[in-house]
Amino acid sequence: MQVVSVIKRVPDEIKERLVENFGEVDFYFCHGMKEGRQHLKEADVLITFGEDVTPELIADATRLKWIMVLSAGMDQMPFEDISRRNILVTNVRGIHAIPMAEYAISMVLQVSRQAKALVQLEQGHQWNRRTPMKEINGQTMVLLGTGAIAQETARLAKTFRMKTVGVSKSGRTKPYFDETYSVDRMKEALSHGDVVVAVLPSTEETTYLLTEEHFRLMPSHAIFLNMGRGDLVASHTILQAIKENQISHAVLDVFEEEPLPESHPFWEEERVTVTPHLSGITPQYLPRGFEIFERNLQSFLNKKEDMENLIDPKRGY
Amino acid sequence: MQVVSVIKRVPDEIKERLVENFGEVDFYFCHGMKEGRQHLKEADVLITFGEDVTPELIADATRLKWIMVLSAGMDQMPFEDISRRNILVTNVRGIHAIPMAEYAISMVLQVSRQAKALVQLEQGHQWNRRTPMKEINGQTMVLLGTGAIAQETARLAKTFRMKTVGVSKSGRTKPYFDETYSVDRMKEALSHGDVVVAVLPSTEETTYLLTEEHFRLMPSHAIFLNMGRGDLVASHTILQAIKENQISHAVLDVFEEEPLPESHPFWEEERVTVTPHLSGITPQYLPRGFEIFERNLQSFLNKKEDMENLIDPKRGY
Repeated sequence: MQVVSVIKRVPDEIKERLVENFGEVDFYFCHGMKEGRQHLKEADVLITFGEDVTPELIADATRLKWIMVLSAGMDQMPFEDISRRNILVTNVRGIHAIPMAEYAISMVLQVSRQAKALVQLEQGHQWNRRTPMKEINGQTMVLLGTGAIAQETARLAKTFRMKTVGVSKSGRTKPYFDETYSVDRMKEALSHGDVVVAVLPSTEETTYLLTEEHFRLMPSHAIFLNMGRGDLVASHTILQAIKENQISHAVLDVFEEEPLPESHPFWEEERVTVTPHLSGITPQYLPRGFEIFERNLQSFLNKKEDMENLIDPKRGY
Repeated sequence: MQVVSVIKRVPDEIKERLVENFGEVDFYFCHGMKEGRQHLKEADVLITFGEDVTPELIADATRLKWIMVLSAGMDQMPFEDISRRNILVTNVRGIHAIPMAEYAISMVLQVSRQAKALVQLEQGHQWNRRTPMKEINGQTMVLLGTGAIAQETARLAKTFRMKTVGVSKSGRTKPYFDETYSVDRMKEALSHGDVVVAVLPSTEETTYLLTEEHFRLMPSHAIFLNMGRGDLVASHTILQAIKENQISHAVLDVFEEEPLPESHPFWEEERVTVTPHLSGITPQYLPRGFEIFERNLQSFLNKKEDMENLIDPKRGY
């Protein structure tokens, strides 16, 4: 039984643990696909970020039975070839929940507690106690999306005694939400949002889902935070909402164009906070990804039952 | 039955609610003691921040039976005179818990997610995804103090799956702490602190309690946050701890000298974050204070039983 990993810079600690816990398995930890390719012919299992798997590689890897993708997105996977060979695919869906939820709470607290203004006061050696502070306690957070990331964010928000309202396609009840609305009642939900957090994936239905009208419906003190996809709303719609005081602040981690061009007006807008698509970045990424792999390898060796995050290659998710 | 409030700028909403809920009570809402003084002779109850009560006023207010102090500190109250007259005193102990806990979590997240560096990148229109992010998930927070503010902070920290360790005089178990140590075992506690949060009041025992030795015991990646009292530790001890990399960051809301002098080296130190003693500032202060008053007024009218935050005037707390 051979496992080939083409993930670069896997910490030694993780390698050693796997080797120790699975004596019957031969592991090849390779620095990328270029190095890993030579072992693919004999590989039963491939661990990859999913961006380097081609139809040719699948054809060569004649013994391959399972691909563990250490990513949540799998746009570049050749699912047709994989499906034809009945190769299992699992991913690390939900792995971004913890850092992204921490990002959301951190940024909402920062805006409420005027972090930018305080950094500027500090730079000027100015002791000014009149910078108005706000609490998040008691406010309503409306989350567009009710998946793993939204749930983790809502879980934290509820501890701060926020009311949590979720908006999803179905409007089905989900853990950590006080209320859930289906997307056709989104306007009603948005009108209650002291804080609106978008964590929607990019699909045909969510592309440019938010329009000027939606921002007009939000309370004028609302904070809008987008950490889902940049094409949920046009940049000029957000800029206009800020300039016309339809909302009080926008926190943006994703953009229509990334990197955000140096000349983009978002950078200069005091009430827009730009972060360079880092809400999901965490040093815990590989450790958590390999933990999921390890549990799945156990299941794989035991009759392949109960594997986590199993993907249907026909649908690609 | 007469209630005299000398609190300035009480929102109309609060006044109206009190008048409506207590038809049998005459309320005088005065803009400070200067205006309120004239009504004191007839007052049964006085609502004050506690800094304007003198022995002469107590002597004049011959019918006074209860002083509601809308403050947690009561250093300037003439307790001897109050005690002799058997006047009840209640305060708003714990009122700072919510904003201060939000402050602590906000600042720890800010440091972990490099808010200062990101503000600077934004100012320079720079898209740089290599700014290293850290999670607070899984870290250990050591709190010096286990009272209402520390408990609320620990409650939030636990939701982020932090381990919470409290240090207090007695070391008694308290809600939301995974472990509690008595102060004579503080060194042991500090050595586990990824984050150390000081919320100790200023007493003889806590003045300059923290010394160079304590900072050497903290992990070199530790964040030290002081929102208790500025005389817990000497400024030069904190500066040295930063310069010698005994800790990675200090977040300071309280100082030996306030306002912090413009020339103080803290302002310029990249890994020291200065906030101007605002952790407890919140627009909810008066509403929450008057909510406690309202519950207490109900009890006062009902045989004076179960009044909240009753103070022993002989001890002053």
